[in-house]
Amino acid sequence: MHFSTNRDQLSSAISIVQRAVSSRNPMPIMSCVHLETTGNVLNVTATDLEFGIRCSLQVDTLIDGAAAIPSKYISSLMGKLPVGNIDVKCDISTNTSTFSYGDSEMALNGFPAEEFPLFPELPVKPTLRLKQNIFKRMLKRVLFAVSNDERRPVFTGVNITVDEEGTLSMVATDIRKLAVSQEKVDDTNGQIINIIVPGKTLNEVFKIIDAVDDEFEVYLTENKVFFTLDNICIMSRLIVGQFPNYKIVIPPNYVCELRSKISELLDAAERASLLIDTRRNVFNIRFQPEQLLLYFYTESGRIREEISTDFSGDPLDVGFNIRFFIDLLRSMDTEEVIIKISGHDSPAVFQPVDDHSYFSILVPAVA
Amino acid sequence: MHFSTNRDQLSSAISIVQRAVSSRNPMPIMSCVHLETTGNVLNVTATDLEFGIRCSLQVDTLIDGAAAIPSKYISSLMGKLPVGNIDVKCDISTNTSTFSYGDSEMALNGFPAEEFPLFPELPVKPTLRLKQNIFKRMLKRVLFAVSNDERRPVFTGVNITVDEEGTLSMVATDIRKLAVSQEKVDDTNGQIINIIVPGKTLNEVFKIIDAVDDEFEVYLTENKVFFTLDNICIMSRLIVGQFPNYKIVIPPNYVCELRSKISELLDAAERASLLIDTRRNVFNIRFQPEQLLLYFYTESGRIREEISTDFSGDPLDVGFNIRFFIDLLRSMDTEEVIIKISGHDSPAVFQPVDDHSYFSILVPAVA
Repeated sequence: MHFSTNRDQLSSAISIVQRAVSSRNPMPIMSCVHLETTGNVLNVTATDLEFGIRCSLQVDTLIDGAAAIPSKYISSLMGKLPVGNIDVKCDISTNTSTFSYGDSEMALNGFPAEEFPLFPELPVKPTLRLKQNIFKRMLKRVLFAVSNDERRPVFTGVNITVDEEGTLSMVATDIRKLAVSQEKVDDTNGQIINIIVPGKTLNEVFKIIDAVDDEFEVYLTENKVFFTLDNICIMSRLIVGQFPNYKIVIPPNYVCELRSKISELLDAAERASLLIDTRRNVFNIRFQPEQLLLYFYTESGRIREEISTDFSGDPLDVGFNIRFFIDLLRSMDTEEVIIKISGHDSPAVFQPVDDHSYFSILVPAVA
Repeated sequence: MHFSTNRDQLSSAISIVQRAVSSRNPMPIMSCVHLETTGNVLNVTATDLEFGIRCSLQVDTLIDGAAAIPSKYISSLMGKLPVGNIDVKCDISTNTSTFSYGDSEMALNGFPAEEFPLFPELPVKPTLRLKQNIFKRMLKRVLFAVSNDERRPVFTGVNITVDEEGTLSMVATDIRKLAVSQEKVDDTNGQIINIIVPGKTLNEVFKIIDAVDDEFEVYLTENKVFFTLDNICIMSRLIVGQFPNYKIVIPPNYVCELRSKISELLDAAERASLLIDTRRNVFNIRFQPEQLLLYFYTESGRIREEISTDFSGDPLDVGFNIRFFIDLLRSMDTEEVIIKISGHDSPAVFQPVDDHSYFSILVPAVA
């Protein structure tokens, strides 16, 4: 392999794909970034088979070929190369890739490129075309509710569905919290989709797509999903399993309901979070007319916050995990929230004011 | 103790003094920030007796008194309090300090204030008055050469001297590297000073003083030094011992000499540093006419850099520790450097072009 390109172009491709380099994989080849030229297209790839990112760019190719270079070295080299053109040449007899710039050069020892796992082929046609900004907004609203607990794989993903009327839904839950976001999308051609995409993948998709009106494509196979935009392709396995029906969790009626400023609730909860210790991480909120009362104590101190609210119903004291409460409120993008309380230990519903496209549920905890 | 003040003012004082909180001290009282009001002056102090910072501010005092509050909690609380006035009250029966803001309050559990170590008294008169910008510039030029090795305490400090002609000198060395910076200062009244100040203290002084023309004061006692500016006082023990005479290290003559751009040398050395591993951290430089050649290899790869120079003398190959080479060049504030080589294993001198107020020495290493 031998090509030349602009440093910034290569550097940006490598910084994107390296998010998919698995830092914990014991096989050295898996810690590599794979470069391959076919004509004037350079594919830069990182993957561990479960998840992968490929970035394609136009370069001036002299000899087609491939190289597998440790991600750690090639990433840090990119940040330190001088601005301008660089020439990259891989010697397949030694697996050494030489980067030439000006009168100088650096060679990085790599691994046999053919040992690098193949990046799966995309299907011929995309299943969906979606707006980046809509998808990004929906992700922000649900990702906080994804579980990290690998023992229940279904909950480590987001259930993405499209129904016959063209409603795109995202649902995430880990039993104690749940988030639902829905948007009407065009151009689904009446097809029904129901997949579970790993939260880890969607976190990367969230970072890579922009809050712009441009579209991106979703490709589906039986066990994989591909997200493509511009010159980037993100690939991920799908999670196998049955996602629970969230509708049964929604309480049929409520004890009380209030409306309050998200920023004030968040500030108070973040102050309370300073006191969290290994023994206590649940604060109490007294839902009552006029002033909501938030209180919490640990060995380090105590806090008592009063926040103005519009309140209706019967007063009630409810405990919430402080971190979950903060994550939930941070996922909301309106100024005010409506909180509906259904009891000491039954789900509380959090809804933005004047927006019915999403809501979240938090199950109270014992303080 | 009971006072009220503006959040920003208290927050800024705490963020300054907390640099002196010792994170490794096993005594809980040492992890506290001490607050004490005397009339309308609030002194905020952190110290471990060896090193300390005090910040004084005007507050509205209702009751004189003191409190010792864990630094970790008070610092993070400051960042999360709402803008505006806060009221702080310490209950001496429980050592609990309550911070009230708006309709809310947070109480932090502390320790008995009287257990906090006393901050030493300043002498009546300052020994020196110095310009902040000059002192800051001098520190930048020498601090990289300070040793971390506590087994030889003298080298963990900077030797600061003033001679009868009013020349202020700073010298730091750890045997393998050495830095000297000198400036003429006014207003020393012919007094001779010769102290060794811990590098750790001077690193904090470097961060706190600004690159401005304003003066600050240095107070000396037999075993302590105080730096005061605006409302801040930094206190530190002095290091006892005899600092070596650096002049004997300066080589009497040189094999070769070159002049080169600091940025080009630094960029090349930083690229080389990417390859450093546990076994190899010394690169070679071939000092020769026209193009200096820098080369280095490890198991991860190899680098070869050519850099244009003005050269005179006989060509020579010399090895340098890459990290020391980088730290030394970063400490210089000119565009070009003159490097004088005296042999494979005798000291190399690094001088800025057109500035005789400072220079550094690096002893070659074996690659």
